[in-house]
Amino acid sequence: QGILERLDAGEIVIGDGGFVFALEKRGYVKAGPWTPEATVEHPEAVRQLHREFLRAGANVLQTFTFYASEDKLENRGNYVAEKISCQKVNEAACDIAREVANEGDALVAGGVSQTPSYLSCKDKTEVKAAFRQQLDVFMKKNVDFLIAEYFEHVEEAVWAVEVLKESGKPVAATMCIGPEGDMHGVSPGQCAVQLVKAGASIVGVNCHFDPETSLETVRLMKEGLQAAKLKAHLMSQPLAFHTPDCGKQGFIDLPEFPFGLEPRILTRWDIQKYARKAYDLGIRFIGGCCGFEPYHIRAIAEELAPERGFLPEASEKHGSWGDGLSMHTKPWVRARARKEYWENLKPASGRPYCPSMSKPDGWGVTKGAKELMQQKEATTEQQLKELFQKKK
Amino acid sequence: QGILERLDAGEIVIGDGGFVFALEKRGYVKAGPWTPEATVEHPEAVRQLHREFLRAGANVLQTFTFYASEDKLENRGNYVAEKISCQKVNEAACDIAREVANEGDALVAGGVSQTPSYLSCKDKTEVKAAFRQQLDVFMKKNVDFLIAEYFEHVEEAVWAVEVLKESGKPVAATMCIGPEGDMHGVSPGQCAVQLVKAGASIVGVNCHFDPETSLETVRLMKEGLQAAKLKAHLMSQPLAFHTPDCGKQGFIDLPEFPFGLEPRILTRWDIQKYARKAYDLGIRFIGGCCGFEPYHIRAIAEELAPERGFLPEASEKHGSWGDGLSMHTKPWVRARARKEYWENLKPASGRPYCPSMSKPDGWGVTKGAKELMQQKEATTEQQLKELFQKKK
Amino acid sequence: QGILERLDAGEIVIGDGGFVFALEKRGYVKAGPWTPEATVEHPEAVRQLHREFLRAGANVLQTFTFYASEDKLENRGNYVAEKISCQKVNEAACDIAREVANEGDALVAGGVSQTPSYLSCKDKTEVKAAFRQQLDVFMKKNVDFLIAEYFEHVEEAVWAVEVLKESGKPVAATMCIGPEGDMHGVSPGQCAVQLVKAGASIVGVNCHFDPETSLETVRLMKEGLQAAKLKAHLMSQPLAFHTPDCGKQGFIDLPEFPFGLEPRILTRWDIQKYARKAYDLGIRFIGGCCGFEPYHIRAIAEELAPERGFLPEASEKHGSWGDGLSMHTKPWVRARARKEYWENLKPASGRPYCPSMSKPDGWGVTKGAKELMQQKEATTEQQLKELFQKKK
Amino acid sequence: QGILERLDAGEIVIGDGGFVFALEKRGYVKAGPWTPEATVEHPEAVRQLHREFLRAGANVLQTFTFYASEDKLENRGNYVAEKISCQKVNEAACDIAREVANEGDALVAGGVSQTPSYLSCKDKTEVKAAFRQQLDVFMKKNVDFLIAEYFEHVEEAVWAVEVLKESGKPVAATMCIGPEGDMHGVSPGQCAVQLVKAGASIVGVNCHFDPETSLETVRLMKEGLQAAKLKAHLMSQPLAFHTPDCGKQGFIDLPEFPFGLEPRILTRWDIQKYARKAYDLGIRFIGGCCGFEPYHIRAIAEELAPERGFLPEASEKHGSWGDGLSMHTKPWVRARARKEYWENLKPASGRPYCPSMSKPDGWGVTKGAKELMQQKEATTEQQLKELFQKKK
Repeated sequence: QGILERLDAGEIVIGDGGFVFALEKRGYVKAGPWTPEATVEHPEAVRQLHREFLRAGANVLQTFTFYASEDKLENRGNYVAEKISCQKVNEAACDIAREVANEGDALVAGGVSQTPSYLSCKDKTEVKAAFRQQLDVFMKKNVDFLIAEYFEHVEEAVWAVEVLKESGKPVAATMCIGPEGDMHGVSPGQCAVQLVKAGASIVGVNCHFDPETSLETVRLMKEGLQAAKLKAHLMSQPLAFHTPDCGKQGFIDLPEFPFGLEPRILTRWDIQKYARKAYDLGIRFIGGCCGFEPYHIRAIAEELAPERGFLPEASEKHGSWGDGLSMHTKPWVRARARKEYWENLKPASGRPYCPSMSKPDGWGVTKGAKELMQQKEATTEQQLKELFQKKK
Repeated sequence: QGILERLDAGEIVIGDGGFVFALEKRGYVKAGPWTPEATVEHPEAVRQLHREFLRAGANVLQTFTFYASEDKLENRGNYVAEKISCQKVNEAACDIAREVANEGDALVAGGVSQTPSYLSCKDKTEVKAAFRQQLDVFMKKNVDFLIAEYFEHVEEAVWAVEVLKESGKPVAATMCIGPEGDMHGVSPGQCAVQLVKAGASIVGVNCHFDPETSLETVRLMKEGLQAAKLKAHLMSQPLAFHTPDCGKQGFIDLPEFPFGLEPRILTRWDIQKYARKAYDLGIRFIGGCCGFEPYHIRAIAEELAPERGFLPEASEKHGSWGDGLSMHTKPWVRARARKEYWENLKPASGRPYCPSMSKPDGWGVTKGAKELMQQKEATTEQQLKELFQKKK
Repeated sequence: QGILERLDAGEIVIGDGGFVFALEKRGYVKAGPWTPEATVEHPEAVRQLHREFLRAGANVLQTFTFYASEDKLENRGNYVAEKISCQKVNEAACDIAREVANEGDALVAGGVSQTPSYLSCKDKTEVKAAFRQQLDVFMKKNVDFLIAEYFEHVEEAVWAVEVLKESGKPVAATMCIGPEGDMHGVSPGQCAVQLVKAGASIVGVNCHFDPETSLETVRLMKEGLQAAKLKAHLMSQPLAFHTPDCGKQGFIDLPEFPFGLEPRILTRWDIQKYARKAYDLGIRFIGGCCGFEPYHIRAIAEELAPERGFLPEASEKHGSWGDGLSMHTKPWVRARARKEYWENLKPASGRPYCPSMSKPDGWGVTKGAKELMQQKEATTEQQLKELFQKKK
Repeated sequence: QGILERLDAGEIVIGDGGFVFALEKRGYVKAGPWTPEATVEHPEAVRQLHREFLRAGANVLQTFTFYASEDKLENRGNYVAEKISCQKVNEAACDIAREVANEGDALVAGGVSQTPSYLSCKDKTEVKAAFRQQLDVFMKKNVDFLIAEYFEHVEEAVWAVEVLKESGKPVAATMCIGPEGDMHGVSPGQCAVQLVKAGASIVGVNCHFDPETSLETVRLMKEGLQAAKLKAHLMSQPLAFHTPDCGKQGFIDLPEFPFGLEPRILTRWDIQKYARKAYDLGIRFIGGCCGFEPYHIRAIAEELAPERGFLPEASEKHGSWGDGLSMHTKPWVRARARKEYWENLKPASGRPYCPSMSKPDGWGVTKGAKELMQQKEATTEQQLKELFQKKK
């Protein structure tokens, strides 16, 4: 059954987790460029991660084609040991995802995301061509449906949806925005309306913010659609990092991004709360983005097991609400084998010299950025000025 | 070259990370029993994790035979889907480790750990028989050397070393103790002396405490050996969790164990400090235990690259000290591409309703344990009493 | 010169600090009733606190007549050792304030605050009569101007201003509200407009929120006045407690209120930031409420000394920005005798088992309140229901 | 009845709180010099603070003669507006204390503390002369007993006790040390032994550390005395600041000292725990030092009211364990009117950007100190070097 049949029937569809962050920690993706050449270089690593998400309960395997547009791969090409073509990366991604999807009951979704071209020129034809190049591979490899994800500007997201719609396959679209809206100030409600009008059957958010913030954004999208009398399925794939202290651009501006985020990682119990809240809000495509490891996805599947009627394969290695601890030798550890314990635990960080929140960096922090310029040759003062002007 | 040749020559040997915690998050190990039947059930997952540690710079691949003694596997047998023999688990573990070791320049170490038999009867013959059963497999599979690890009682560790020494292979021994010593009150210095006298060529600690605490314990072991005019190589494989608030029995007594430890996870920069400090203390076998993911092991290899003269394979996907960020589009993120930034960052937890430290549970917390007893059928008041008496 | 002459001339007028909290810690006011019978029982304690605020730089001494309306004093009468008449309390308050004001260059302001009558019956005549009773004393004692403060409902505040205006003296009016507005949902801007239309020459906020939140509320008031083309002087007297985690009703709903607020107390440096920000916002009547001790008021005066051209008397015992430390015997303490040090310090709480923020209690927390009812005889379920209904 | 009669009879004697910190906040003492010229300049302020401590339950009023030795007053003379003689300061302190003591049932204790002379020359004759000069005033004014307090070196404390003993009056001696002992490395046990042998009838600690640390130090003193078969009454007057992160020299080395300590202030409930623990340890002279406000002293008196059989005068304005809240209008505030609530509260700091602990500065922090030298003219590099050498 296709994605829309499932959602139309009221099924809960569980997405997968975050590939770039998980594979960075496993040694296959470089933080900074974040490009997916591992599909060609180390397919076994990508395959294994897909498999873990599948076992954890994911019903959708997204091709590992994040930032796999030609302009992005070239842009960051110096990081890639041997030059690998955009097409090869995308094809390998499709093959691996399909191979694993066939091990279970999962759909394969081809994905496109925001492009450097949009930021540098905003030429509609050029940007659409980049998406079309990826789409050609997805059609050739016959993915089940398509996702346009991680867009900061609804304008570019709409272009992506328009291209993907040419395929005739169902299209989902998620933006990496918070309740304040996209980078041009378009509200979540308006973003959702534009995406649905462009042809998206499923809309929502992914990345950049924690579940709580992301669900608030989806709530605003839902309100916008209702006000416009439009219908679409809702989808959320937030971070597995706590980000109550984020600014408008999300976790990238936090000082801890990307190498000091550990203390912010959500526990499986945080995820169960997220899954329940997403469900209650009417979201039926529930997954994760950066920071989501297989056990986080399993936590979604376990929380919603009563509604779905079954547990994922990986629950064989997990007692619900810590139940596996009930045979521990120490009685006070056995005492933790219950829901109320984990639901109410306020986990300590073990970091008494660290604060609980950070002030995000940002465009206002010119002074720090300037100091950097004086220290680093990589970018000149002129380049910085241009960046700032472009931003306006 | 064998482990002792390397260490005798002054080489730094990098160990691998924590299998049970990493595979629990990937969906292949059950928290509570923590047994390694995945070597038979899902060899591809175990293989992949070995490979990641190898790529990250590990020179030693430990067979995934933690808690793989027959008494332990039986004890927790009800968790294992289909009954798998102890021998099969251990053999598969050896085969997988060897297969991956051959992909690079790594040694295979067969490992034994503390047994339920010791806790329940303390019969020397019986306990030694359990170790010998595992050793038979290690000999048949011809591992390169042996590690007796995760012992809370030096008495049992000595028995393990005595058994392993029968093989003629080099033996390392690490205890999961802190500066206060083993569960019978034997000091770290005395533990080290007894282990070396029993035949261990390498001694140190693993698990239960964070790097800072663990290094203090190894320092005390070193002092003890010096005072006794004994020589041995030093080894440390601590947790990748911050545990400044632990009691004598380590992180197991923390309320967050094992499902709420996320905010305590060490960053790669914490690990670099650990690696440097371990090196300065004279430790030359430097690895990790629970919580250590591949990128943590890579951080050891990167910190000690100046001494070793080379970087691990996985550093291809990692710029030293965040260098990969130097091409980020935002200038304030580029400003993070430098050592001082990450060295001085005090990462926030994003959890303003959580404390920074916890009070550990423990044998004193009888009241909580009793309440549990009234709620749970699993253990009777009588069983609890017996447990307490056994403990004394 | 009167209050309006000063403000019209562009002078900065510094208010005093919080009497009920300061005198509670000194042993003269009971938390719960918070009534000011100390003016009669222990005039020397009230006089000394007035004197300290005067020395610290206060230009206005408010009579200690908070909650000194007859209905409130009777309501809580059981706490007062010997029955003291409302008139006596108010008269003594005026006498003490005037006596100390004459020691320096300060104005005496008579103050009224919200009444139990408003909450229980909302009868305009009755409530106004209560204010008029206090006003009679203020007129007899010839205070310099009048302040209607600590109102949660703008309706009652307007009634108070109307009564006070009968006197012909200048009237200031401050509400204890946050940016969300009054308890009936009237926005800060609308509150300000109504108060000015009722006759207040000075409007703003006091109590319930920390400086940051309070200044945001005053900013909204200012916007409201500008939109309505009304003119008034602005005033702020916030808490000296950090309350970023407050709900709509402010610090009273925080679990720490009132006996666990210590870790939230603002430092003198926090106050200097507040004073500067208030000044930059155009506020010229700058003081404090609960938590403000004399040294906090001095910090306002020191921060604004460049604008005012003079320091308060108590600065004789305080070096600007920690300057007094420059002769300390330890060099690292001497190193703290500078502005950048204190400006950038992030003071630790010394409380590693405590969180940094709390979830406020509130009307939603019915369950907790109900449990209480079952434990305590003081209030019946019926009374609780009535309270809730009244609240609606 | 004298102090020894009371203690010998098993009575609990409650000390007073911290004058320099309380009066600094009230505007009468300058941080840095910390000298008590306020006794002459503003006797009404000193008198009022004495009175508040008396009302709070203090049985001993210490003359405000801290740092009132001639060498200290001269040393810091430039801070004192008009030159006031050492004798005048000490005499006024005695007069004020006696005047207030006569308002209730309190003893007056004359106090001496460590001298600059000891640090600069260590000449026994000179140092003793400084103490004798103060003692002459105490004898002339006929105080009830004497306290030698705030000594970092037991050698100087012994000299002080020897001088004070010449008077024939009972002598108490407290050091401002932690469990690690005095600045020359003399253990708490040894310090106590030396002080008792010199003639002190009461020994203990004051200042520099929080109650928990201070009680541990007194415990060690008690052990030392028992081992030496000596008898003395025990006394504790700790800080009212949490200092779990202190080094050997206590809170002065914390970065927050002295102007950022607010988040560390103990609540009244923390004090009640302290009082109970002190009592259980056998301490019968229980008071406070820096940070102790009148309500903290009252908390000692309230905690020990069952043992003493009465409440202090100021409890008239305080319901035990928050009882005064039972008539609050909001039910969830009424719910706080009980012991379990306040006993278990973990108060938040409202400071999410601040850590919970700090690393103390210290002699090792040469780099920071050096940087300071380059910035400040006050002290030359040469002076710094001398300071360091002196320290050795």
